[in-house]
Amino acid sequence: MRIAILGYGNLGRGVESAVRQNKDMELVGVFTRRAPESVVLRTPGVPVFHTDALLEKKEEIDVLILCGGSATDLPVQTPEMAKHFNVIDSFDTHAKIPAHFANVDAAAKKGGKVAIISVGWDPGLFSLNRLYAAAILPEGADYTFWGKGVSQGHSDAIRRIEGVLDAKQYTVPVPAALDAVRSGECPTLSTREKHTRECFVVAAEGADKARIEREIVTMPNYFADYDTTVHFITMEELKRDHAGIPHGGKVIRTGKTGLDKEHNHVIEYSLTLDSNPEFTSSVLLAYARAAYRLAQKGECGCKTVLDIPPALLSPQDGETLRKTLL
Amino acid sequence: MRIAILGYGNLGRGVESAVRQNKDMELVGVFTRRAPESVVLRTPGVPVFHTDALLEKKEEIDVLILCGGSATDLPVQTPEMAKHFNVIDSFDTHAKIPAHFANVDAAAKKGGKVAIISVGWDPGLFSLNRLYAAAILPEGADYTFWGKGVSQGHSDAIRRIEGVLDAKQYTVPVPAALDAVRSGECPTLSTREKHTRECFVVAAEGADKARIEREIVTMPNYFADYDTTVHFITMEELKRDHAGIPHGGKVIRTGKTGLDKEHNHVIEYSLTLDSNPEFTSSVLLAYARAAYRLAQKGECGCKTVLDIPPALLSPQDGETLRKTLL
Repeated sequence: MRIAILGYGNLGRGVESAVRQNKDMELVGVFTRRAPESVVLRTPGVPVFHTDALLEKKEEIDVLILCGGSATDLPVQTPEMAKHFNVIDSFDTHAKIPAHFANVDAAAKKGGKVAIISVGWDPGLFSLNRLYAAAILPEGADYTFWGKGVSQGHSDAIRRIEGVLDAKQYTVPVPAALDAVRSGECPTLSTREKHTRECFVVAAEGADKARIEREIVTMPNYFADYDTTVHFITMEELKRDHAGIPHGGKVIRTGKTGLDKEHNHVIEYSLTLDSNPEFTSSVLLAYARAAYRLAQKGECGCKTVLDIPPALLSPQDGETLRKTLL
Repeated sequence: MRIAILGYGNLGRGVESAVRQNKDMELVGVFTRRAPESVVLRTPGVPVFHTDALLEKKEEIDVLILCGGSATDLPVQTPEMAKHFNVIDSFDTHAKIPAHFANVDAAAKKGGKVAIISVGWDPGLFSLNRLYAAAILPEGADYTFWGKGVSQGHSDAIRRIEGVLDAKQYTVPVPAALDAVRSGECPTLSTREKHTRECFVVAAEGADKARIEREIVTMPNYFADYDTTVHFITMEELKRDHAGIPHGGKVIRTGKTGLDKEHNHVIEYSLTLDSNPEFTSSVLLAYARAAYRLAQKGECGCKTVLDIPPALLSPQDGETLRKTLL
């Protein structure tokens, strides 16, 4: 399976490294909008091309992994590329997924290609678990918790405050909320009750830390609805202790069965990830395998993780899977 | 969707009660080998028939749920019934799944019907999670823990000991083993290190309790390889405190990513179930919906949970699922 990457940021680098862990895949090229000679890959022998060269390489690529951002890249790139390639993206603007799906579906059908969108862990694996759990326990309630993990958007918001040199923000689930959910009592939880936010901030010398802290904790949309803790640390400490991009979370459904709804059940799916982009990349590649197989069977159009038979994700055949995993 | 039940034990009763929670399903009959007039359902208006009448009712049943046991019922029933009905079973003798699959596949193809076998939580939801996790993290290790929950087989084994009136056995995961697995260090764990067994035993008056305890803890295959605790209690206590059939467990995969395998990830799927048969029944019905839809599309043959696109389990359509769950 010949894989190509479009966009060489954190996610693109994650795909590059994940390809090496999948013996049935080969990385045939990385495409970038930057000057190709300025991009140094971590894999010897893999060529870097300018995005302008993509269509020329069409016959050499089985699946193109789109590693751009959801804000501006993917809404344009995925429909454009789905005309020519089997593609996978990680489009994660939940509210805009239906419109994105429609655009990509039309393009992929026109090109006779398979596109799988919104692949990753949320949307992605978390969506799958919401679906399975709700189908099994029709009378119940769903909860999603994120963290402990780094929110890039919130970290960026802090960095835009005057006097802040750098910052890292962690989203942390509240243990008492988790306990209440797992008890099966179906609590109604406010935003503040579900998560806290913890910020590690490097302030410029002489900056007014009290003002910075106030601006953070009162920031609308980002922090005002949460209990937020601000720690001022040195740049050295930030680099030493907060360099990673860990994340994770939990999807929990509790539901009742029995003639009198007397039995309670808890389904919990939990991820603890040292590297958010590397894990997401690993999910993208499993779905690249499925896209390739569907295309080989002559299918086309846009799909999501909800549509893909699980067995298509595995390098093993059905017989082996039934024997070893079932 | 017209559902029928074959076999009215714990599982059959679970399906009966779960049908009421699925608005697109209707229970059209329960089939039993007992005298139908001796079986009293918990749902008014649903008829009970002898199994001999099954074929006459063929046109009135969309999916037949097979609620017999894996030891002797299902190996015969599922292939036999798959010639005439779309069927779901919960066949759980792991080692015999390939042979069962082959038999059922041949029968279902002959009859032009859809059969989904080995549905439940293990095999079933646990199998799905092993597959997803292994496809995403190719370099890692899998662990399955069961419990805390009642093992019927082990409870039965204790009941066969002379001087035992009744007994209930719980399988309990060892917390230290769970911690070691979640740490990502990929421990090699012996049977004894993973689970303990806790037994609640009612002894006959005057029975030699020391002998009973010795016979339990040294019983080969069942208890000898585990740290087993035996509590002697009264029949009243057993009925009051141990009447339920709770179960559950966890499937955990830890795996590494990164060029130097420097990042660790933990995927954990966990079930905590007040009623093992009712939860299993709820899974069977979600897959009954999928079988019905596949049959409507003209598919036939044997499938497992690994083959079924998740969206087919939900009563909602693709557009709604993308909008609400993705």
